[in-house]
Amino acid sequence: MKKLINAPENVVQEMLAGMVMAHPEYVRKLEGYQCLVNAQAPVAGKVGLVSGGGSGHEPAHAGFIGRGMLDAACVGNVFSSPTPDHFLEAAKAVDSGAGVLMVIKNYSGDLMNSQMAEEMAEFEGVKVTRVIVDDDVAVKNSTYTTGRRGIAGTVFVHKIAGAKAAQGASLDEVKAVAEKTVANVRSMGMALSPCIVPIAGKANFSLAEDEMEIGMGIHGEPGITRSKIAPADEIVSALMEKILDDIPFVAGDEVAVMVNGLGATPLMELYIVNRKVAEICAARGISIYRTFVGEYMTALEMAGASISVLRLDPELKALLDAPADAIAFKQC
Amino acid sequence: MKKLINAPENVVQEMLAGMVMAHPEYVRKLEGYQCLVNAQAPVAGKVGLVSGGGSGHEPAHAGFIGRGMLDAACVGNVFSSPTPDHFLEAAKAVDSGAGVLMVIKNYSGDLMNSQMAEEMAEFEGVKVTRVIVDDDVAVKNSTYTTGRRGIAGTVFVHKIAGAKAAQGASLDEVKAVAEKTVANVRSMGMALSPCIVPIAGKANFSLAEDEMEIGMGIHGEPGITRSKIAPADEIVSALMEKILDDIPFVAGDEVAVMVNGLGATPLMELYIVNRKVAEICAARGISIYRTFVGEYMTALEMAGASISVLRLDPELKALLDAPADAIAFKQC
Repeated sequence: MKKLINAPENVVQEMLAGMVMAHPEYVRKLEGYQCLVNAQAPVAGKVGLVSGGGSGHEPAHAGFIGRGMLDAACVGNVFSSPTPDHFLEAAKAVDSGAGVLMVIKNYSGDLMNSQMAEEMAEFEGVKVTRVIVDDDVAVKNSTYTTGRRGIAGTVFVHKIAGAKAAQGASLDEVKAVAEKTVANVRSMGMALSPCIVPIAGKANFSLAEDEMEIGMGIHGEPGITRSKIAPADEIVSALMEKILDDIPFVAGDEVAVMVNGLGATPLMELYIVNRKVAEICAARGISIYRTFVGEYMTALEMAGASISVLRLDPELKALLDAPADAIAFKQC
Repeated sequence: MKKLINAPENVVQEMLAGMVMAHPEYVRKLEGYQCLVNAQAPVAGKVGLVSGGGSGHEPAHAGFIGRGMLDAACVGNVFSSPTPDHFLEAAKAVDSGAGVLMVIKNYSGDLMNSQMAEEMAEFEGVKVTRVIVDDDVAVKNSTYTTGRRGIAGTVFVHKIAGAKAAQGASLDEVKAVAEKTVANVRSMGMALSPCIVPIAGKANFSLAEDEMEIGMGIHGEPGITRSKIAPADEIVSALMEKILDDIPFVAGDEVAVMVNGLGATPLMELYIVNRKVAEICAARGISIYRTFVGEYMTALEMAGASISVLRLDPELKALLDAPADAIAFKQC
C-alpha cells in the first residue's frame, strides 16, 4: 500500500486537522465530531445546508463548505457513513432557526443515519429535512444501495441549493430546487484501476492490465460491463448514450456538464473526455451552457472518470451562475 | 498503458480542443500553434504574461490563464518544450504595446526555446523579457537542467506577477516582482510511483512496491534518496528541513504554503501532509499567512507530492491576495 499517510486508523482525523489548518477562514471543526462547519455558520435567517457521507471522496463534501454552498459536512470513516449523532450535531451547529436541508447520496448507510438524525433533530426542535441524490444511471440496485447510487451530480445539488439558501429562500423553497436538480441530473462513471481503503491495506477489486469497467461506483461497486480498454471516444460514447437516453435529454435542451476525475486520472485525460462529450451534445442538438472539468467527487486513487449532465431551466441557470466561495469550488 | 485517451500522438491537440470547448469564456486557441490565449487578450496597456513548457503538468500552465494570472500558455508535447515559434506567437498575441514577460521553468529546452523567441520578438518589435524559476531545492543539476529545476513554486510567480500586471504596472515592475517571488520561494517533491508518457507507453522509471524517492522531479528525474516508504510525517519533515534551511526561513517569517499533488495522490493525503507542514512551521516560529492544497503542477498520473514555501513581505501578500479568475485558480 503506497500512501502518504501515518497510521491508517488516523487518516480522517489527520485530514480534518490539515483542512482546518489550511482553511481556517472557511471551516472549523465541530469539537468531538467528524464534522467541519462553515466558519461563518450559522448565518442569521439562512437555511443551513449540510451534506456528508464516507470520506475518501475529497473534495466532496467538506471542500464544498463556503459561501453559496455548504454550511457543514459530516465526514465518515473511509467509504463508511457518519453515524446519526454527527449529522444531528452538524444540523444543530448551522441552524439559525430557518431550518436545515441535508443533501444525502443514496446509499443505505447514509439514508438510515441521516433519517435518524432528522428524527432526533425534530425531538430537539430543529427543523431538518432531506433530499436524496440518485444520479448514477449505471445500475438499479448496488452493493450498498437500493435504487440508483448518488455520485458526482450531487455537487450540482450543493451548488444550486447553496445559491438558493444564500438568497434567503425558505426551507421549502431550497428543498424544492434541490429536488428539481436531482430530477434533472444524470451521471455515469467508469474505472481503469481500483483504490485501496487505508485500513484494509489492499485494493478493493482487481482489473487486468488491459481491462476497464463501465458503470463502476465510487466505492468500487460493480458496474455493467467489464471489457478490454477502449479508446476514450468510444468509452465516452457509451457513457453519454446511457446518460442522455435516461431522462431523456433532447434537442434544444440546455445543460451543464461535469467531467469528474476519480482520483488518479490526469486532467489531460479529463479534457480529452470533455472534447467528445461536447461533440456528442452538439450532434444531438443539446446546447452546453457551462462545463466543469476536474476532481469533484473522487474514490481515493481510483483511475477513471464520471460524466454528469444537468438539464437547465432559467432558475437553475441563475443559481448555477451565482457566486460561490467554497474551499474547492469558487465562482467569482 | 491504462489511459483515457485515443491515439497517443493526439493527446495534446485533443486536450487543447477539450479545454477550449469547456472554457470558451477564458481561452481561445492560437490557430496553427499549441498555445492557448486569454479570450480577453491583449488588454490595452497591460503587460502580457506568458508561460509554458511541456504538457502533462495540468493544470499548469494553461489552467492558469485568466484575469489576474496568465495571458497565454504554450503547451509542448508531453514533457517536451514548445519550440520558439510557439512562444513568439503567444507573446505577439498578448502584447498590447506594454511588453510581455515570459515565466519559464529552469529546464534546458524551455530556456533555449524561450530565449530564441525573445530574440525573434525583439526583431519583430515586441518587447519580451523572461524570468526563470528554479525553486526545487532537491538537486543542483538534473537530467534536463543546469542548476535547480523549476516546479510548483512557479504557480506563485504566475499569481503574483499576474496581479502586478493586472494593476497596470510596467514590464520592469512586473519582472521585478516576479524575480522577488523566485528569490523567496523554495520547493521540493517526492514520488511513490512513476507515470507513463502516452507516446512511450511505459513507465518512465520504476519503484518497488515498498519504495519511494525523495527529491524526484516532475518528469521523473532522479531525486536524492530512494528508500523504504516512511510515514507521511517523516517524509514531510525531510522535505521541510531541506526547504526551510535553504534561504533559510527563520522565526518571524510570514509564508504562503502550497501542498501540491503530482497526479494520483488523493486530496486526503495532501491534507495529511499539510497538517505536518503547519506543525513544523509553528514549531519554527514561522507564521503561515495562506495555504493552498491541491493539484497545481502535476506529472501525469505520478503518485507523490511537492511542498512549496514562499516568504512574504507586504507587497507579496497584497499581490497574493488580489482577485484572480483563472480556469484552475480562482480567488473571489
